[in-house]
Amino acid sequence: MAPPLALTLGDPAGIGPEIALKRWLARKDGDPAFFLLADPDATSRAARALGFDAPLARVAPEEAAGAFARALPVVPLGVAYEGAPGRPSRADAAATVESIRRAVALVREGRAGAIVTNPIAKKPLYEAGFPHPGHTEYLGALATELWGAPARPVMMLWSETLAVALATVHIPLAEVARSVTREGVVAVGRIVARDLVARFGIARPRIAVAGLNPHAGEGGTIGREDLETVAPAVADLRAEGIDARGPLPADTMFHAKARAGYDAALAMYHDQGLVALKTLAFDQGVNVTLGLPFVRTSPDHGTAFDIAGRGIADDSSLAAALRLAARLARATAP
Amino acid sequence: MAPPLALTLGDPAGIGPEIALKRWLARKDGDPAFFLLADPDATSRAARALGFDAPLARVAPEEAAGAFARALPVVPLGVAYEGAPGRPSRADAAATVESIRRAVALVREGRAGAIVTNPIAKKPLYEAGFPHPGHTEYLGALATELWGAPARPVMMLWSETLAVALATVHIPLAEVARSVTREGVVAVGRIVARDLVARFGIARPRIAVAGLNPHAGEGGTIGREDLETVAPAVADLRAEGIDARGPLPADTMFHAKARAGYDAALAMYHDQGLVALKTLAFDQGVNVTLGLPFVRTSPDHGTAFDIAGRGIADDSSLAAALRLAARLARATAP
Repeated sequence: MAPPLALTLGDPAGIGPEIALKRWLARKDGDPAFFLLADPDATSRAARALGFDAPLARVAPEEAAGAFARALPVVPLGVAYEGAPGRPSRADAAATVESIRRAVALVREGRAGAIVTNPIAKKPLYEAGFPHPGHTEYLGALATELWGAPARPVMMLWSETLAVALATVHIPLAEVARSVTREGVVAVGRIVARDLVARFGIARPRIAVAGLNPHAGEGGTIGREDLETVAPAVADLRAEGIDARGPLPADTMFHAKARAGYDAALAMYHDQGLVALKTLAFDQGVNVTLGLPFVRTSPDHGTAFDIAGRGIADDSSLAAALRLAARLARATAP
Repeated sequence: MAPPLALTLGDPAGIGPEIALKRWLARKDGDPAFFLLADPDATSRAARALGFDAPLARVAPEEAAGAFARALPVVPLGVAYEGAPGRPSRADAAATVESIRRAVALVREGRAGAIVTNPIAKKPLYEAGFPHPGHTEYLGALATELWGAPARPVMMLWSETLAVALATVHIPLAEVARSVTREGVVAVGRIVARDLVARFGIARPRIAVAGLNPHAGEGGTIGREDLETVAPAVADLRAEGIDARGPLPADTMFHAKARAGYDAALAMYHDQGLVALKTLAFDQGVNVTLGLPFVRTSPDHGTAFDIAGRGIADDSSLAAALRLAARLARATAP
């Protein structure tokens, strides 16, 4: 039996506990078993407050798969937290962070098959002294620490309709042009190609690389970067035997006919790729981190503090994240 | 009877003549009458070369509507050109430019209801000494010259699914952040609001303004421009009684549920808006220029020199451009 998936707590003041409970309540035969890394008592309180009839099982990871049919398996975190819905607090930060660390460690130990992360908020973590820029960077640091080799995490948004990886992520638009480098695009393209083979089982992935500028620079008349940075990066990737093409005008590369020609798009910046993905597959997108020595997926939404505790959160992106994590973990099981 | 639409020649080495002929051949009862501003002999030659059985009528604009049922009305340009398919030439530039000028003049004189422009290419025009940055800027200059008042053209891409106007257009991405100003966003938003009322007949248009940065800057942590430039511009627009909202995270503003909440989106730059539009409505998009004293639409594609003369060009965007021009001209007829 495949090891269960480890689902992190996320920010306990957000919708993470609610969607974890909802997902367990909506489980069907054949759904991948998962356990929540949380405090069992706090999770019970959250379930009662939401009016959910969801029995919990306090388990070790090895017992989660067996318990999953009758109760939501909770692996105790050993760190207390408040988790008042809609009221994020720096006092909850230690539990949020420990949940992520434990999940990665359990995968490293072979006791979990992959990790699925509930959303976190940066502000309470920063206030509590969290030294990493964000979730993904922390996972990269844990990978380096626990596997002993540097990791370069790459953010890819995946849906049945479109997969798009990003060369740059959460930086101001004013910094994008100078942050897109030939070496960076090559490094990201290489990781995308490798993980599409190793984790997604695509024998010869086709990668469509977006141009940085409108019309991919139109031969240099709208910026030189596509000629001088992106095109050479695509050539480098091709020289390594990777089926990359581009730079392509971003506006015409995401319609249905264009999408049929590639397995993943590589966008140069956040909105270029995510406008396409979320326009096509809002609520069905999964955030998957490539370039790590383990499988990590995440629902493609935030903590949603504004609706936390009201029972109205949508668990469909978490459902997709769990399904994808199980699929990728199977494909890469030793 | 409404005055006919004036369809410009565009670059005669591109697909303009072909899609004009195709559109006339595919005409149905109730389609808006249009005339082509071109050389009748050259147009005849183009039709024969394509194997199209399309009779032409050499007419004055006033005769076009009456002739439309039996022949493609051509208003003679009086400027010769070669128009060799796929071989753009500076020798064709004078005809391309004169066709645009005549179309605008005919609207000014009340002899045409609106102008629909076939695609042009900048290179042959620049080589022939054309002093304007592009099509739209030339139309702005003609508006100023013929109406005697300054015009600020605003590019909007329109489809049945989504309408999106742009605060900046064909500039390198590296210049976008500094080109987006409070005054500029206000000026564009004001024109969009005014023309949605005056031309589209929307009594109280709702305008969704995109943030410049990912997540609309996330409270200033991903760039300050959304706080310091875009938000004040939205406030200025609201103070004028315009129902503008934003800055909104661009990635989550274009899915179906979000689109239901506004009449037009205002994107800060080219790919932010056009990735959404062309992903949703490729081949159905119409380029409509707001802020002019006349109605101008255009198919949302280029000259397509690579397929010119082969009879395979798709006239669906031109069809949509003609339909929209007729609708807007009716709404704004004196």
